[in-house]
Amino acid sequence: MNFKLTLLAGAVALGTLGSAAIGDSHDEKALLAAVEARQAVMKLYAFNVGQLAAMAKGEVEYDADAATAAASNLAALSALDQSKLWPPGSDTEALGDKTAALPAIWQADSMAMKHGMDLANASAALAESAGDGLDAMRAAFGEAGKTCNACHKDYRQRRN
Amino acid sequence: MNFKLTLLAGAVALGTLGSAAIGDSHDEKALLAAVEARQAVMKLYAFNVGQLAAMAKGEVEYDADAATAAASNLAALSALDQSKLWPPGSDTEALGDKTAALPAIWQADSMAMKHGMDLANASAALAESAGDGLDAMRAAFGEAGKTCNACHKDYRQRRN
Repeated sequence: MNFKLTLLAGAVALGTLGSAAIGDSHDEKALLAAVEARQAVMKLYAFNVGQLAAMAKGEVEYDADAATAAASNLAALSALDQSKLWPPGSDTEALGDKTAALPAIWQADSMAMKHGMDLANASAALAESAGDGLDAMRAAFGEAGKTCNACHKDYRQRRN
Repeated sequence: MNFKLTLLAGAVALGTLGSAAIGDSHDEKALLAAVEARQAVMKLYAFNVGQLAAMAKGEVEYDADAATAAASNLAALSALDQSKLWPPGSDTEALGDKTAALPAIWQADSMAMKHGMDLANASAALAESAGDGLDAMRAAFGEAGKTCNACHKDYRQRRN
């Protein structure tokens, strides 16, 4: 997973480029394409999380195969190489309401890369145990959910 | 990959349910969520294809690692379990311009499942060879592109 290296490279590039390049329409188009692509990843996270949440809450009957399929999707999605999806300058201060990504993601002390790896690891564990009964799935699902919240808490802009 | 089984199940369910259930707002909401999720997959296909196309056309210098990353993403995405993304009744006749998916996808003689598997196989081959130089990448990329076109030609509504 190149997430870590990418964010480090992004932080360095941000120091060099600042937001000076954002005014260029070609650059902004590329930034927005990256934003849309990472939002597509988030949408697919949410869709698969939704399948598991419905079972965890008892709204839908637990199904080992369906739970494994959703968890395996989540594991595959969180293991994608997202190195092109988080270019420096694609934060909400630069792009406004096109994104909720806070500039802190690209700062030197950012924990975003760690949260991304935590999600990948927790999703892999969830995929392993999702078929082992509702209790096992629910426990692993809770652990994966913590990694979502950990990143959103600090790095996603709150909206009313 | 459960694509095949799902489409078969979908075709059977379509015969039973027809479009009678579509008027129900809860059902329509679920159908639209599936449409949005599969469009997110398509967006991520396109984003990664775009990275490879830029190298194949010479607009961006060939980079073995970047090509492998994009191709591996494409392989992972095309291997996702899409069984919840193509529910019967989520075609453009039922949902209008929310989707370009033609009803033929769910018909008994549909080749959509085969095209999906062809894409997964071609993407896996592309991921294997994308790092072996521009010519090797370009050749495998062309094969993967054929599988996109094969499905879109018959199963995606043309728009002006």
